[in-house]
This record gives sequence, structure tokens and C-alpha cells, in this order.
Amino acid sequence: MASLVTFGETMLRLSPPNGTRLETATELDFRSAGAESNVAIAASALGTSAVWLSKLPDSPLGRKVTRDVRSHGVDPHVTWSDDGRQGTYYLEFGAPPRQIDVIYDRADAAVTTATPDELAVERIRDAEVFFTSGITPALSETLCTTTRALLEEARATETTTAFDLNYRSKLWTAESARETYEELFDLVDLLFVPERDAREVLNIEGSAEMIGKQLRDRHEPATVVVTRGENGALAVDKTGVVEQPVYEAETVDPIGTGDAFVGGYLTRHLEGGSTASALAYGAATAALKRTVEGDHFVGTRSEVDAFVDDGTKDGISR
Amino acid sequence: MASLVTFGETMLRLSPPNGTRLETATELDFRSAGAESNVAIAASALGTSAVWLSKLPDSPLGRKVTRDVRSHGVDPHVTWSDDGRQGTYYLEFGAPPRQIDVIYDRADAAVTTATPDELAVERIRDAEVFFTSGITPALSETLCTTTRALLEEARATETTTAFDLNYRSKLWTAESARETYEELFDLVDLLFVPERDAREVLNIEGSAEMIGKQLRDRHEPATVVVTRGENGALAVDKTGVVEQPVYEAETVDPIGTGDAFVGGYLTRHLEGGSTASALAYGAATAALKRTVEGDHFVGTRSEVDAFVDDGTKDGISR
Amino acid sequence: MASLVTFGETMLRLSPPNGTRLETATELDFRSAGAESNVAIAASALGTSAVWLSKLPDSPLGRKVTRDVRSHGVDPHVTWSDDGRQGTYYLEFGAPPRQIDVIYDRADAAVTTATPDELAVERIRDAEVFFTSGITPALSETLCTTTRALLEEARATETTTAFDLNYRSKLWTAESARETYEELFDLVDLLFVPERDAREVLNIEGSAEMIGKQLRDRHEPATVVVTRGENGALAVDKTGVVEQPVYEAETVDPIGTGDAFVGGYLTRHLEGGSTASALAYGAATAALKRTVEGDHFVGTRSEVDAFVDDGTKDGISR
Amino acid sequence: MASLVTFGETMLRLSPPNGTRLETATELDFRSAGAESNVAIAASALGTSAVWLSKLPDSPLGRKVTRDVRSHGVDPHVTWSDDGRQGTYYLEFGAPPRQIDVIYDRADAAVTTATPDELAVERIRDAEVFFTSGITPALSETLCTTTRALLEEARATETTTAFDLNYRSKLWTAESARETYEELFDLVDLLFVPERDAREVLNIEGSAEMIGKQLRDRHEPATVVVTRGENGALAVDKTGVVEQPVYEAETVDPIGTGDAFVGGYLTRHLEGGSTASALAYGAATAALKRTVEGDHFVGTRSEVDAFVDDGTKDGISR
Amino acid sequence: MASLVTFGETMLRLSPPNGTRLETATELDFRSAGAESNVAIAASALGTSAVWLSKLPDSPLGRKVTRDVRSHGVDPHVTWSDDGRQGTYYLEFGAPPRQIDVIYDRADAAVTTATPDELAVERIRDAEVFFTSGITPALSETLCTTTRALLEEARATETTTAFDLNYRSKLWTAESARETYEELFDLVDLLFVPERDAREVLNIEGSAEMIGKQLRDRHEPATVVVTRGENGALAVDKTGVVEQPVYEAETVDPIGTGDAFVGGYLTRHLEGGSTASALAYGAATAALKRTVEGDHFVGTRSEVDAFVDDGTKDGISR
Amino acid sequence: MASLVTFGETMLRLSPPNGTRLETATELDFRSAGAESNVAIAASALGTSAVWLSKLPDSPLGRKVTRDVRSHGVDPHVTWSDDGRQGTYYLEFGAPPRQIDVIYDRADAAVTTATPDELAVERIRDAEVFFTSGITPALSETLCTTTRALLEEARATETTTAFDLNYRSKLWTAESARETYEELFDLVDLLFVPERDAREVLNIEGSAEMIGKQLRDRHEPATVVVTRGENGALAVDKTGVVEQPVYEAETVDPIGTGDAFVGGYLTRHLEGGSTASALAYGAATAALKRTVEGDHFVGTRSEVDAFVDDGTKDGISR
Repeated sequence: MASLVTFGETMLRLSPPNGTRLETATELDFRSAGAESNVAIAASALGTSAVWLSKLPDSPLGRKVTRDVRSHGVDPHVTWSDDGRQGTYYLEFGAPPRQIDVIYDRADAAVTTATPDELAVERIRDAEVFFTSGITPALSETLCTTTRALLEEARATETTTAFDLNYRSKLWTAESARETYEELFDLVDLLFVPERDAREVLNIEGSAEMIGKQLRDRHEPATVVVTRGENGALAVDKTGVVEQPVYEAETVDPIGTGDAFVGGYLTRHLEGGSTASALAYGAATAALKRTVEGDHFVGTRSEVDAFVDDGTKDGISR
Repeated sequence: MASLVTFGETMLRLSPPNGTRLETATELDFRSAGAESNVAIAASALGTSAVWLSKLPDSPLGRKVTRDVRSHGVDPHVTWSDDGRQGTYYLEFGAPPRQIDVIYDRADAAVTTATPDELAVERIRDAEVFFTSGITPALSETLCTTTRALLEEARATETTTAFDLNYRSKLWTAESARETYEELFDLVDLLFVPERDAREVLNIEGSAEMIGKQLRDRHEPATVVVTRGENGALAVDKTGVVEQPVYEAETVDPIGTGDAFVGGYLTRHLEGGSTASALAYGAATAALKRTVEGDHFVGTRSEVDAFVDDGTKDGISR
Repeated sequence: MASLVTFGETMLRLSPPNGTRLETATELDFRSAGAESNVAIAASALGTSAVWLSKLPDSPLGRKVTRDVRSHGVDPHVTWSDDGRQGTYYLEFGAPPRQIDVIYDRADAAVTTATPDELAVERIRDAEVFFTSGITPALSETLCTTTRALLEEARATETTTAFDLNYRSKLWTAESARETYEELFDLVDLLFVPERDAREVLNIEGSAEMIGKQLRDRHEPATVVVTRGENGALAVDKTGVVEQPVYEAETVDPIGTGDAFVGGYLTRHLEGGSTASALAYGAATAALKRTVEGDHFVGTRSEVDAFVDDGTKDGISR
Repeated sequence: MASLVTFGETMLRLSPPNGTRLETATELDFRSAGAESNVAIAASALGTSAVWLSKLPDSPLGRKVTRDVRSHGVDPHVTWSDDGRQGTYYLEFGAPPRQIDVIYDRADAAVTTATPDELAVERIRDAEVFFTSGITPALSETLCTTTRALLEEARATETTTAFDLNYRSKLWTAESARETYEELFDLVDLLFVPERDAREVLNIEGSAEMIGKQLRDRHEPATVVVTRGENGALAVDKTGVVEQPVYEAETVDPIGTGDAFVGGYLTRHLEGGSTASALAYGAATAALKRTVEGDHFVGTRSEVDAFVDDGTKDGISR
Repeated sequence: MASLVTFGETMLRLSPPNGTRLETATELDFRSAGAESNVAIAASALGTSAVWLSKLPDSPLGRKVTRDVRSHGVDPHVTWSDDGRQGTYYLEFGAPPRQIDVIYDRADAAVTTATPDELAVERIRDAEVFFTSGITPALSETLCTTTRALLEEARATETTTAFDLNYRSKLWTAESARETYEELFDLVDLLFVPERDAREVLNIEGSAEMIGKQLRDRHEPATVVVTRGENGALAVDKTGVVEQPVYEAETVDPIGTGDAFVGGYLTRHLEGGSTASALAYGAATAALKRTVEGDHFVGTRSEVDAFVDDGTKDGISR
Repeated sequence: MASLVTFGETMLRLSPPNGTRLETATELDFRSAGAESNVAIAASALGTSAVWLSKLPDSPLGRKVTRDVRSHGVDPHVTWSDDGRQGTYYLEFGAPPRQIDVIYDRADAAVTTATPDELAVERIRDAEVFFTSGITPALSETLCTTTRALLEEARATETTTAFDLNYRSKLWTAESARETYEELFDLVDLLFVPERDAREVLNIEGSAEMIGKQLRDRHEPATVVVTRGENGALAVDKTGVVEQPVYEAETVDPIGTGDAFVGGYLTRHLEGGSTASALAYGAATAALKRTVEGDHFVGTRSEVDAFVDDGTKDGISR
């Protein structure tokens, strides 16, 4: 029985070497990546039993994704499809003033037609926490319906529901997103919201703390976690506001940092840790993720434990 | 004024190292490739002024394709589109008993909506030869119509039309293909047909020579070239049957060999060479292509000249 | 409940590029490899539920091995150890007249101290087939005892025992090996013996068929499979002698071919296939393995099915 | 008709990976690079129709250079030579206190014998701007004469002349350079001078502004642009002094930054932009160049437009 | 006759690309590295005639090490052994908060059984300086005895003895190390001690200067050099205390920095330079080493001379 | 005292990956290579004490060459020069019908001005064998004179002289070469002549045996070795004709095969082996060289011994 079940799309990630632009590239790094499998992978690395649900084309590309997810210790429950593409994205690393550029090529992915009856919904029923992100309903009408259905299924069986807003401006407008999110929020027990998305998508004003409080007020009894990038994070739960500063880290690859945060948070939550402890584990897992290439947290529980205890380290261990 | 104008889709080609399967690959070679630009590239390398028409998404991916084509000396006339994908294909090299596997991811490519009025049709009017392949009409209804329209346009302006059957079983059924091809053939002056496709798609029986003769009879006064892989090629024109043995070559990458053949053939044709000479240049260009990685012929006219004159070479030039 | 459980050492495999010698190499390909996990991986790829038991150091190196095995769909049950090394081997590809050279650096590996009580022996009891190889008892006195104990445990619970002789001259002498093997053979239901080892280690003379018959006579009712490299394989069982010619394949990497053979054979055996069918699947899996880099079979059941049905293929699938 | 024509040497650039010294390197990155083609490439990327004139050996090395230049959209007009070498340079990246080291191997390059009558001078006559740099006359006596002749030719046909001082201490002494430059300056309409070269080669003292004014006074009515590295740039024209601060950028590869500046400046100049606008485009193009590997600006006009409007950006676009 | 002779283990160094963790790595950089050969290599690069003594397995791995050392101009005197492993270490680069992690796999290396009578001790007798480090006695009882014997041999022949404390917590406890070190110190003429080791291993308190003075007092007439990482270094000799600030450098690879320091120091010492001059050369050699990948200083005497004279440099030399 | 001293140019060798043409390459393999250092390297690997004399530019490129030669155990005696280039050559691997193409860029190399008085001629006097090749006098007038002077010097001190014809059509005409060679032959004790060069350069007709006999007759008492590529080799000495068949080998890189032959031959000659034995060692060393990338033989004496004894091997040693 898995503690954590996640559902969402996992794409292939194609990226040229840092410093090379896509249009002059001659070779690409080839990985897999997706918010919900990223979360499962981080949680699994910290000791959580994790399952990832998705739908993939029955092809070498779909198998590549599944192999990668499984290698991290997550148990993939994949619905194999003869129709639909394997979603991909091209990632071009930038250096200021060039932003990192993400070019999605994920239209008509197999997952966009996934319905609850073809997914291993029983795994959600048995789980302690079910997680999906705000990317999933953005992918298709069908997935919008499916996302709602899965959250309802979880609610019906007393599985905690967790949701990360994760707004993607390249997938839909802020208006469409807001409308969808507001319908889903009442099904969510644990809500992660990037501060910028709260402002730009949800149109909530004020300080981060005020954002968290407003969201908590609207969707009580949910716990609301506002993630603030380099400014750390804060949570508003029944005990009030808990703040968490960021852990400094050298950035090797920033993609997936937010997902690692969620994976670390959920692990401590599943272990019965306090909100403060969950935030600390989220922040530490996120910091360590930044030092590693790829979307995925790669490391051990003992590394995160030590980092939560001792803070930043430099130098050589020999 | 270009001697040769071609029209068709050019994809991105993603391939893991030889001996590695896609599902365990961690890096991919990243090139561009497409039958019609391949033909233009081979012809250009041999000295033909060549233009390639297509429609691509206005993105780094579309620019990558255009850069690659241009680097070979072909003049790309691209209609930039805000809609539609950049077609891609994954190429997994095999070794017997594993076949080389091509996995298309080209649905909804920008080119599939290309209509004559958005293409630089005036370049076709001015050209001596217009070339497209049997892949183009397989890509969409629109392209089927466009292919016919462009061939008609060429005919109307006394531009010679050339067409390579190039049946792709992963794109459509033999039945659909046959129906389409037979409608197009009457617009074609110079028809390239792989022997296997003649049998399996066109349902023509008999020896290669008999195939060529039957096609010539049906579509006179077209010249018909039957390509036979390791058995060489033969042409049937007004003078009768001309045979061309294969030039032996070590195969580094077989993809694009047929396109190099057409590029070599058309170059000699444009220079007023005999059918026999065109076949010899086609075969020599194809053989040299096999020794080079990627879809493209990379070499010089003098190399092909020398090869046509002297045949195969081994050893070290120093 | 796994159908197949295997036990043995999995090493890290370090190899320079083909054509480069170890002493001038500046980078190494980094994989994992071990006869028993190779067998489990091939069986898993063909659809068999497979578990691999081993003991590894609790280090990034041990985790690397576990990740790799898991990525292929095998369920690793690893005993983590604070003592003992991670076994490694250096692989230098050759080209005749240079042999491929294997340089073991596996002394004092964590697995060499593995005893039955620290392994997940209950998985063997529940399995249909238990497999280990003649490499395992060569690694230490302790493993010699453990090998015998695990085979006895399997026998006691009606789990079929399978054993591949796999003599390694760099690990022990033929005399020591023969003595150990002969003690173990009476615990084995399904014995795989390379023809050369039968001659050079077991000192059995005569044709391959005679070797198989003699071994079958001595260890009845075991089924004996004599593997003959480029000469195919043959089995002697209660129905008599069954021969299997080799499937031709281009060799990209020959390491692990024998293990793929066993994985293919066991899969058909578990499905209730005849000895002839098991031999055919073994041979086909082995042939496809030869075309792929690394110790592991990477492919699908449907590829092997098609190959068993149709034999060798060349060309391009598109 | 090209808006911009440039003339100069383009070399092959051979560089080991960052952090590796040439004397221990085992592989080299292989690109092409040259001040005048770099300028044309940047201008072309921003939408300027650009031609590059040069003389190269008729060899795979000369063809490599031509392909690279063409891939960026510049139209190369190359005089192919049977004599003379392909110029090359080795680039060893440094990290303070190690400077980046450039090792020229360009003696006797084919271009060093280029005379006006073998170059496509008619392209200069038709162009709006002709550009060359202070590197060209440093390469040979012949090129010193040719540089003067081409500038005179441009002057005679009302083509604007632009010149970047670009002193290279590894090619000639400051004394020789000064003498040559001073003879050429009266043929130049638009003069780019690095502040350091003004001091060390031209022996002009005072602030950057005073340098610009002195040069303007001496060579009126030329516009003088003083480039100041991390201190930005300033121009002195008939309207007075215009200052441009530097755009901050993370440096991936600093080589070619000055050339990108000129390419950006000339593009706005050709479009009729003000000196202030030309400086801003020069600075923005230079900043984006610094973030990309290789001598060449790779990017789009819209990226530069956005950067000029909004200034520096960080983060991820998705 | 070599000026400098060093003795110690040289390992193979296996490292994944920066940003990749060992457990997900698929290729490794493959170098050799060892404190005492590192010192000899740095000294040799600066012009010192240097010999390195060791014992290695007679295998491609041992030959790889010897080739690497020889390529830097050091003369290796290797005792070839049929027993014992080739020591290796895995190096995982980190980024704060992840430390650089060194994973030793050096147990039972051939060198651990090296006795004075199988080493080329006559080279020590003839040398001006003999150097070994505190790693050597940590490797085995035998090497502890051998280290003492070699130092005594050097003393007996008026060869100056130099020793770098170099405590490795992964090899032995601070207690064991302290006991051994204190026995050896009376045999040492020139003692290098990292400030941290002085505190944590030798239990000496106070400022760096006080540490140096105490050690000098205890082991007079030895010169004591306290290395302080980013805080520079100081020496205490008969003339008193000499301080050396650190030279700033961008860190590409910090491993081997301390060894480069010693190599630079010893070179000036051998040339009769003052302690201040030796410290400056040590610091400059160390700074340049940090800018280069691998354990080894790669550069020239003239580079170090220029750096000692002029201090830090940025920019491009062309 | 070295047994073998060689003199000649060593170049940098720049080659794109097999299957990639130079004009589309983006990275190059970077090695060093030269007939005379290749011979010294092969001889050194087989146990001969070898010195290589040359003149190189005092630059990172010259140091790269020296490091590479030294790493193979050869002692380089280099005259460092402030003038002259580092010779390079580009190597494009071919596949029939494309020949391997060598593009020299070696004009004005530092070595072309080497005179006897700046070389370590005393090393030749002390040696048992002095070797140079027919490439050396082709490089410059000065080297033509120097070659003769060094051979005379060797003769004067009873050092055996060995010379490999090694005609390079890209360096000079057959006529010039013949004239020079014929003047040098009377200074040669051991003459290696490729059969093809004997025919095409020396204009000698008849069978290989007849060629050998005619050369022996003309230049008695020299021993003449005619190398015949895939047809083996034969020698004519005072005892008559000795034939040596080729050892079959898979070709990974054919460059340097002839030099490895000479290195193997000279080693046995220096040991006092018979002509037949020297031929066998030459052929075996050459065969093993073909299996390794780069110009250099990399292997051990025991491998060559085993190969001479047992002939070709296939398979895996484990």
C-alpha cells in the first residue's frame, strides 16, 4: 500500500548543453520530467512509498518514461495507449539576460484522454495522500474532468488531497486557470501556491502572509503553503502562520525545485511531522535538488536530515 | 533562378548512439531530415542551384531546420507559422536481426496545413525541375490537394515534374497510397519508384524491367526509374531500358540513400546528361551518402565525378 | 509473488570506448552487470515477474546498482551492508587478434559475506523458479555454503532450481570449480552448461549431444541444456534430445548473451512452453541481446515473439 | 542587394573544454570565427541582409568555414584558392588568474593574398554599409593595400564605411598598427574604437569622452564609437556625445562580444535609428552574445527588441 | 639525479560530470591522482627534476597510472606487483549545500604491502628533498613502518625530509593519526600542516600563528608551514613568522590544491629561495591549479613567475 | 643509453568522429602522431629504450606533442623554437568508396629548420640504431640536408641506420623523392620499402621478391624489407629471402600500422633476433596496432609475444 499516489503527465525533456541554443544544437540530453512524478520521486528518495499514475503511448518513448520513473523507486501504474503522443518539452538553459526557455511539444499526449475508469483509481483509495498539480487540468477538457473526479474519489475515501497550483502561461490563460482552480480548491486539503501565481492568476493582493490567510479563509480547513522562491515559504494552518526561510544553494538546474519542495513536505506530513518540520524538509529537499542536473531530486534521506539539522555546507568530505 | 525546387516536410531527427535503444538512451543526436530537402541538398552539393519550399513553426525548432538546410547551400523559402508543430522522428539504429526503427512524431506539423497560396509558388514557375515525394500527400488532406496543385502549376509553366514514390507504411495504407499516387502520376515527367513499393503498393508484378515498362506504358511520356536497393536501378525512357548496377559502399547510415540517388540523378538530368549518365550519378551519390552519418549527402562534385569514373576505392589518401 | 528469483553479485562495469585501451582511456562508460541480475532482467523484459536478491554496500555505488536493476522492471531485494566493497569490473573491448579483456576488481565485495539468514529467503520459497550461477560459489567460501543452502531451500519448497555453470577462469581453478559444481548438481532441476566448460572444467568428452546425455544420466531427472555459442544449443530432457540452431545476429556487445539466453528460456519454461520452445526463446533473446550495448537485454516480448516466428530481419521499419 | 557587406578572414576555432588546458586536451570543439563574419552574422540575425567576402583554400576546411557562415543566414562570396592555408586559432578558456589564451595559427592563410580584383567588389558598391576591422590590414602587406582599396571603393560609391580598430598585439606592434590605422581613418565614416586600444595603440589620453571627441575632431565628419567593456560605450557624432551603459549579462563565452556590438549597432544604423538607439542595440546584442558559446550571436530580433525594452531577465519562461 | 623524490599511493580517480550524482551517472571521467605524485607533478612543471616511487599492480590499471604520471615529466620508479589492487576513488562534485564527496575504494592496494627493500631507496639517498604525506602511514601497518624507514633513510643521507599532514578522516581516527604523526614529526625538516588538522587532529589551540609556533617549538629545527585554505598560509622558521595571503582564483576543481602548494613551495626551496618566496610560489601554484580540472597542476614556470609578480589577471590574451 | 634513437616531425592529429566529414564536424579528436615517434613508441612498448629527437615550437601545442610522446615511455629530446609552426594534420576517416583522407597543414613547421647542431646528435652516436623516414627529407631543403648529416653521423659511430621509404604524394613528386632517396640509400643499413612505393616512386618492376633483391643488389650490404600491406612482408638479407605472411586483424584505425611494424622489427633486431623473428614481431605489432585508435601502438610485450606464438584470437578473456 503506497502512502503517496500522484497523477499527471510525464514528458520527455530534451535539452542542449548549457550555453548552446536549440537552433544550433547538434545533440540533446534526454531525460523524463513531470511535476507529479517529480514529487513522487522526491518523496520516494526520502523514504515514502510512492505510486505514480499516468497514461502513455505504448512505444519506446512511453517505456523510456516508465523506466526512468521506476529507477527512482517509484511504482508506475501506467495505462498503455495505442493513441496519443508522448509529450515532450525542449529546455534551453539561459543565463541572464536570457531566461531559461521551455518549449512545450505536448499537445495530444496520450494522457490528455485519460479517464478515471482507465486509471488505477483503487491505488488512490488505498493511499494516505493523493497529489496532482494545476498543470493537469490545463492539458485537456478530459483531464480537467478527470482531475476533479480523482480528487473527489480521494475525498470519498479519506485520502488526503494535495494540490500544487503550478500555473503555466504557455498552456492556458490566467482567466481560464483561475476559474478551474477555484472549482478544485474546495476538494483540496493541502494547497501549495507560488506567491507570484497567487497574485497574477488568483488576483490576490497583499503580503505573502496575507495571501496565505485569504486562501485559508476561503478554503478552510485546508492548509495553505505559499512558496516564495528565494524568499522561502510560509504555511497557514489551524495553528496560524509558520514561516520557513530558504536554504541557500548553488543552482545547477532550477527545474523541478518546486516539485522537490512538495515531495519533501509531503514526506514529513505523512510521517506526522508538524507543519514547521514539513516546511523545513520541503525547503531542504528543494535546495539539494537545485544542485543536481535534471528535474529530479537525487539524494538520500540522511543527506536531507543532516542538512535540516546543520544547514549549508561547503568543502570536501574525505 | 533556381534549377531545382523541392517541396515537402523536413523533420528533426533524434537518434541515440548506435547500439543503444531509445528506451535506455540518455542523449540524442539532433539533426534535420526530410526527403525533399535531402534531394535538394544532394543536388546542391553537386552544383545545382536549389530551393526548398516548406512551412515551419516560428520557433527555435523551425529555425534549427532552416539553418541546417541553408548550411548545405540550399535556399530555403519557408512560410513561418504560429500554428502547427515541428515534425520530428526518432531513429533507432538496429543491427540484424533488429531492424532500424523509425518512430514518427509528425502529426499536426505546421506543413500539414500548407496551401499553394502561402507558398512561394513563383519559384516553381521559374525552375527547370520541381520535385516532391509520395510522403507529402500522405501527411494530410490539405497536402494531398497542395501536392496536386503544385504539380499542375509546374506543368503549366513547363517546369519538369519529378516524383519519388517513397511509400511509408507508418503513414497510410497501401490502398490509400495507391489511389492517390495513380491520380498524381499523370502529372509526373520523371517518376522514381522503389521496386518493392511497385509490387506492394502499386500491385505491379514481374521483373523490375517489366515493372518499369508497365509504368512507362501507363504514364507515357514519363521516364520511369525503378530503384532496386542492392540490385541497382533501371530506367525506362523513350530510348528503352537502361540498367545501372549498384556501387558497393560500406554503410555507415542508410537513411537518405534514396534521396541522394534522386539528387544525383536530377543534377545530371539538369545538365542535359543522358539517362545512363543520370543513373550513374544517382548511384554514385547514393553510395557516397551511405558512408556518411545523417540523412544528407555531404561531399563534392569532384568526389562523385571521380567515383563515377573510377569506381570503388579503399585505403588512405596522403 | 515473483515467478523467478535470482541470487548473485552485480558489479559496476567500467569500459573505455571501443578501440581505446584501458591504459590510455580518459573516460569510462559506467553500467551495472551481473549474471543473475542479467537473467532476471531478460526474463522481466519478456513478461516474467522477477526478483533479484543480493547484498551491497550502503553507498552511492550500491545504490547505482540497485537503480539500474530496478529500471529494467526487476524487484531488487538488497541487504545493505556497512562492510565490504562494491564489486567492479573493467571491460576492454577487443578486436581480433585482441580478445575482449575482463579485469575483475571484485575481491571482498559485500556480497561475499552474504548468509541465508540475511537474505530474503522467503521470496525463494514463494517463487516458481530460483536461479543462480556457477560464479556465485566461486566468490567466497561463505557464498559456496550460501549457494548450497539456497538451492536446498528452493528444493524443500518445490521451487524449481536452475543453474548456469558459467565457469570463470580468473576466479578459481577448474579443479576447485569441478568439485563444487558436482556437489551442487544434485540440487539442480535445470542445468545450463556451456559446451567448452563441460569439456575443460567437467572433463566430459564427446559431442555436445553426448555431453548433454552424460550430464542428464548423472543428475537425472534434471534437464540439461548445453549452450554452444555460434553452434546453437541443445537440451536433453525426459523426451530426449532437442536441438536449437543459433540465430544470426550482428554483435554490438557480446557480454551477457548467455544470461539473456537463460532469461528467455526460463520465461517460456515458466509459461509451460516445451523445451523446444524454451530453447527457441533463449536463442532469440540471446541474439537480440548481442545487438545492444551493455550486459542487459533491452527489448520487448513482442520483438522476441516476432523474431522467433520470422527469423532474422534487416532494413528499416518506417 | 545586401545592406551590409563585410570583408575579412574567418578562421577555424579549436578549443578544449573549459577547465582543460590545451597541452592535456584530448578533444577540441571545432567552430569558425572571424571578426567580420561575426559582425555579418549578428546583423543578419537581427534582420539585415548581409554578405561576407573572403578568400579561402579550396579544401574541406575552407568549406567548413563557408557552411558555418551560411548557416547563420549570411551570403558568403568566397574566392576559392589553391594556395594558402586555412587560418586557425586555438582558444584556451581561462579562469582568473588564468587569462583566456588565444594562440593564432593563421600565418600564410589564403586570405593574406587577396587583392581587390579577385574579390566580389561589386557587392561593396551596391551595399549600404561596408565593414572591415583593424585585424585585416595586420595580416599581410597585401591585405593592408586591399583594405585601403576596398574602403576607397566604398567611398567612391557612397557606401558608408565602418571600421572596428580591434588591435591584436599578437599580430603586430602598436607602432605599426597606429601608422596604418591613421592612414585608414580618413576613409572611415563610422569608427569603433575600444577605449584601451585608443590609449595603448593610438596614444590618446584623457577620459573615454575626451578620446571620442579627439578622434571625431581629427576625422570629422566620422561618427566615433568608443567601446568600454564593462563600462558600456559612448558615441560622438554631429549631435554631440551619447552614452550607453553596459547591459549586465552572465558570461558563458566572451569571444565575439565586440563583434556582436557592431552587428547590432549597424543594424539600427541601417534602419535609420538614432545613434542612441544604435548604441542600445549594440549593447543588447553584445550582452546576449556573452550568454552563448562560440564567437557568434545566436538569437532573434524579437529577443533583442524585448531586451532593449525591458532590460535584464532571470528565471524560467514556461 | 632527481632533486625531489616522493613516495605514496596514486589512485585512479573516477568522477561523473559536475551536477550528476554517482548513483545516476552513466559515464565517468578517468584520471589518476595521489598526493605525492601530485606534488612531484607540480614541482616538475615548475622545473624540478622529480621522481615518484610507488608499488602498483602489473595490470592495465597500474600502467594507466604510470603513463599519466610520466606524461607530466615525472620519472616513475614503480615496483610492479602480482598481488594487491589498484586503489581507486570516486569523486562526486558538489555544490553547496552538497559537499564534494570522495568515496575511497583503496583497501588492499598493492602499495599497502610496500617495504623499503622493494623500493628504489637509492633514489631517496641521492635526492635533495624526500616528500611523503600523512596519507601514506594511514594506509596499512606496513606502510606506517615503511614511511618511518624512508624518512630515516633520507635523514641518514642528509636528504631534506618534507611531510604534509593531510589527515583523511575516512581512513583512520584522529587518535590513531595523532599518535603516528607525533612519532614521525621528529624525522621531518619541513612540515606542512593544514590549520584545521592542527586543531582537530593534533589538538593544538590558538591562532594559526600560535599553532605554527607550538609545532616549531616541539620539533625544532623543522620549518613549519600552516596552510589555511582561503586565509592563505604562514610559515615559522628560524627567522620567525612569515605570512602569505591567498591568491584569489576561480575554482574549477579544488582537489589537489594543497599538493600544488607543496610542489610550488619545494621548487623554490630547492632553488634556495627564501621562505617568503617559497610561500609565494606555493600560493601561486595552488591558485593556478584551482582553475584546472583534475588533481594535477598543468602549467608552466613562466605562468607562475608572472603570477607571483603581477597577481590576478582576467580577460583575453590575443 | 638509448638503444633506439629516431628523428622526425610529430604533428597534431585532428579527426572528426568516424562517419562525419570534416566540413560538417563540430568536434575533433586531438592526438599527436608522426612516423618516427610512432616507431619509437612501438619499440618502447616492446621494451626498447627509445629516444625521439625533434624541434617544436615553444607553445602549448609543442608541449602537447611532447607530453603524448613521453606518456608512452619514449624520452623526448626536443629543441624548443620561438619560430615555426606546430605541424598538424586533419584525418577524415572514410568507408569505401570513400578513402581515408589526410589533409596536411604542416608547412613551415618548426622542425623544417632543424639543423644537426641544434639537435642532440650525441644521442645518435650512443645509440645502437638510428631511424628516420622518407617523410623527413620531404619537409624542407634544410631537413633534406639534416637527414643526410644524421645518417652520416650514425654511420661514423657504428650506429646501425634504419630508414622507411614512406613516400607521401601530398608532400613532393615521385621524381624529387626518387632522386633524394637514391642519394640516401647508401647510408642505410636496414631499408623498409612499401611495395607500392618501390613500383611507383623507385620505378622498380617485378614481384615483391624481385624488388627486394634488386634493392639489396644496389645497396648491399643493406637488409631490405619490402612491406606488402595485406600480403605481408619479405626481407632480403645476406641469408637470402625471408617471407612473412600478414597477421589478420580487424581494423579499428589503420594509420600508424607501418610504423608499428618497424618498431616491432627493430626491437627484435636490437635483441639479436633473426630476420625471420624480426619480421614476425613487426607483423604482430602491426596487427595489434590496427585494433587500436590513434597512430600509436598501445599494448605490452607479453601480448605481442603471445600473438607471435599463438596467432589470432577471438572471444572474451574472463
